[in-house]
Amino acid sequence: MQQNERTEISEFGEFGLIEHLTKNNEITQAGTLLSVGDDAAVIDQFGKQMVVSTDLLIEGIHFDLMYTPLKHLGYKAVAVNLSDIYAMFATPTHITMSIGISNKFSVEALEEFYEGVYAACQKYNVDLIGGDTSSCQKGFIISVTAIGEVAPDKYVTRSGAKVNDLICVSGNLGAAYLGLQLLEREKKIFLENPGIQPDLEDQSYLIRRILKPEPRAEIVEWLQENNITPTSMIDISDGLSSELLHICKSSNVGCVLYEGKIPFHPDTEKMALEFLLDRTSCALSGGEDYELLFTIKQEDYEIMKTNAHISVIGYITEKEKGTYMLSKGGNNHKLIAQGWNAFS
Amino acid sequence: MQQNERTEISEFGEFGLIEHLTKNNEITQAGTLLSVGDDAAVIDQFGKQMVVSTDLLIEGIHFDLMYTPLKHLGYKAVAVNLSDIYAMFATPTHITMSIGISNKFSVEALEEFYEGVYAACQKYNVDLIGGDTSSCQKGFIISVTAIGEVAPDKYVTRSGAKVNDLICVSGNLGAAYLGLQLLEREKKIFLENPGIQPDLEDQSYLIRRILKPEPRAEIVEWLQENNITPTSMIDISDGLSSELLHICKSSNVGCVLYEGKIPFHPDTEKMALEFLLDRTSCALSGGEDYELLFTIKQEDYEIMKTNAHISVIGYITEKEKGTYMLSKGGNNHKLIAQGWNAFS
Repeated sequence: MQQNERTEISEFGEFGLIEHLTKNNEITQAGTLLSVGDDAAVIDQFGKQMVVSTDLLIEGIHFDLMYTPLKHLGYKAVAVNLSDIYAMFATPTHITMSIGISNKFSVEALEEFYEGVYAACQKYNVDLIGGDTSSCQKGFIISVTAIGEVAPDKYVTRSGAKVNDLICVSGNLGAAYLGLQLLEREKKIFLENPGIQPDLEDQSYLIRRILKPEPRAEIVEWLQENNITPTSMIDISDGLSSELLHICKSSNVGCVLYEGKIPFHPDTEKMALEFLLDRTSCALSGGEDYELLFTIKQEDYEIMKTNAHISVIGYITEKEKGTYMLSKGGNNHKLIAQGWNAFS
Repeated sequence: MQQNERTEISEFGEFGLIEHLTKNNEITQAGTLLSVGDDAAVIDQFGKQMVVSTDLLIEGIHFDLMYTPLKHLGYKAVAVNLSDIYAMFATPTHITMSIGISNKFSVEALEEFYEGVYAACQKYNVDLIGGDTSSCQKGFIISVTAIGEVAPDKYVTRSGAKVNDLICVSGNLGAAYLGLQLLEREKKIFLENPGIQPDLEDQSYLIRRILKPEPRAEIVEWLQENNITPTSMIDISDGLSSELLHICKSSNVGCVLYEGKIPFHPDTEKMALEFLLDRTSCALSGGEDYELLFTIKQEDYEIMKTNAHISVIGYITEKEKGTYMLSKGGNNHKLIAQGWNAFS
């Protein structure tokens, strides 16, 4: 490669890079309703709409096989893709799965991985319809593409949030990040003292949240059954702060987030104390929770509050008012995207 | 990983491995018409049928950046996926493109890569609708998923070849393999004597066939315009022998291939002589030609022979008769799959 200039990828960051590389992307197919830049793309096939999303998972970047059982990895690779489909308010139907593997893996190891893949497919009623298998020089590479369907024009993007809409989140946040800290701590102890057994017995909830996340299918189903269509929606893979900023940027609005309303699991609170970590920071920047973040019209609040698995955590404001979190102490903090940046 | 047994992946080979890992794959979606095991999967979406195919390309395994310009690589990554869609007798409409890149690549290098991606998308009227961008510790990883459409039940699989069908191939074979030999030779010379300039001027045809292959869209269009539906079809990525054996195995038939009918470009013949290579072997086992191999009913022969870009190279027999090539010397050779095996 001969280059006159050299711009480092890290100068852009993941989202900046995608934006930069796709700015000249031309759409020619009449059926392309939504392209690069949301959780998934939407294409129209003769009135029925399909949603497509894809993810690349690379050993050493996205997962550590020292503490990730291959069966869990297979399950998670499918689950995180389905999460993107649900985040479009759609129902996943099919996936393709490609893997690149070095010869350190045996056939038995791959069987274990595929057990997890099939378990996730069965649980979410999705068919594995194709893929590619290749060798690679080092490590394990996984590429998954998920396809889903949605009733015509019922898909939900990141860009529909309106002033005064309520900001909602499913489940609880920060658990996956603390699960990861636990695994990293035990890995370190093990590497220093291989004789010591890991002390993870009481932490099954946090460990499960990082190793075997579940897409929030039942939240989407509940919303659909109750005729609530969110005005915007995204899944939380990079942390609440980063995802909320995506919605605000795409929707051209601001927001107020109440720190005191962010939902936590008791185990998350306890472990944050043990690690001397601020639990709010774990929720804002931790990532990998795969909960759904969405906005609804105020009129949907009465029904929404009947669902104990959904928390209202703030509201949408005019863009000029900025993107802030109101702390428990009553102070305004500007939200910043400190989420996971693969290029930093 | 704790394993009691260890089976090496190389014992299975690529196709054996996929077959092994997907033998327990359960299909639950009513819309899944064709799953793992063909060039692409077929799914039914309310009467309209869609074709989905995916490929993983890894630096050091599938391409060598020492002689592959990034723009060509981007073009080829798209082209080879579209080839799988055309091989289903379908028309590609959309792709997703995920890349994993180490920090040795600059933004300018990626821009060059995407120029090639967009050039291929424009040429074949396909929309890039999504993807994922990640860092990786080493090299360049590309994952492409292509989506296409086909009139209901008009897709063509590998499994429909019938006894007495004619075996046809588009274009000419072996050119990509000889292009690769040329590039490898020049790389070796360059590494030994960095001052010497590569001597590739007269070899643009062979070089183009390996660096910038084109899916055979016009062959599919011509067949459709002339109301010829092949009984089976596959694209030639691993060599004529391997692909013809795929058709015979899936269709439960045998074949006779005439060595003297295999089409070659004059440059291929010349370069095979220069490299002391048997040109028939280049066609049978070379791979990467991305021509279409298909079978037709005898009654379609009269129209077929009017197309100078299609050669009839043999015919389908009963399974019991085996899979043979009749050499120019009049001898029968059993066809063996010596195509590219990423795990050997």
